[in-house]
Amino acid sequence: MDKFMQAAFEEAEQGLQTGGIPIGSVLVHRDRIIGRGHNLRVQQGSPILHAETDALANAGRQPAAVYRECTLYTTLSPCIMCTGAILLYRIPRVVIGEHQTFLGEEELLRLRGVSVEVRNDSACIRLMSRFIETHPELWREDIGV
Amino acid sequence: MDKFMQAAFEEAEQGLQTGGIPIGSVLVHRDRIIGRGHNLRVQQGSPILHAETDALANAGRQPAAVYRECTLYTTLSPCIMCTGAILLYRIPRVVIGEHQTFLGEEELLRLRGVSVEVRNDSACIRLMSRFIETHPELWREDIGV
Repeated sequence: MDKFMQAAFEEAEQGLQTGGIPIGSVLVHRDRIIGRGHNLRVQQGSPILHAETDALANAGRQPAAVYRECTLYTTLSPCIMCTGAILLYRIPRVVIGEHQTFLGEEELLRLRGVSVEVRNDSACIRLMSRFIETHPELWREDIGV
Repeated sequence: MDKFMQAAFEEAEQGLQTGGIPIGSVLVHRDRIIGRGHNLRVQQGSPILHAETDALANAGRQPAAVYRECTLYTTLSPCIMCTGAILLYRIPRVVIGEHQTFLGEEELLRLRGVSVEVRNDSACIRLMSRFIETHPELWREDIGV
């Protein structure tokens, strides 16, 4: 796991430790993390704070030029809402820990010119598999089903 | 303007009065508003609190069955992030005040089965036109350009 995926993974673990859904994300600009986040559905009762949107929120208001030089790292394949956020800010590259437990909108990202890299990381798969197995209803709520 | 678009418009006006971008939204379940919101980029320094996502956030965690019976009203055509949020929760119907000042992702919404109705409301057009004219940079930031 490279250092940025490691940082996203640590966010996911922090989410789990605080009673939440273990998905983490970091926004990286020119080799520096400018926003970190994790899913906060449980902790803040929020349907819009997924890992990716939370990382964007924590990065604060950024000029378009900054987003254009960013890579978003996320432990899990991004859902359609987070995909939309990535496309809105024209983030050119997304690195995904795994898409085995949930396949998000990678096709739409690629279709609109985003570079998508999937790592198939075993630690990410294990963390999410265990969570889905033990909290199926919470997980279904998070993906709107 | 019907009562729900009126409520969305009042949210937009409240956004303007508090120094923000005048876009408002309400989430309606079975003829009752369960969430209201407006763009909070300026007020909260947030890149993810658009009117629609703020209305969803304020509605809190809802079961999938509730979203399936909702209509989202918004004063302006939804951007790709808000479109993603609508699709994630499978909200079946979106009513849009106007799409003259900004055309969002109505095509993607329709492509994925969402019923989209555009009102071409003159008050919504006027409010947004004036704002874009007087705050072009802030507006560009909000749509990621």
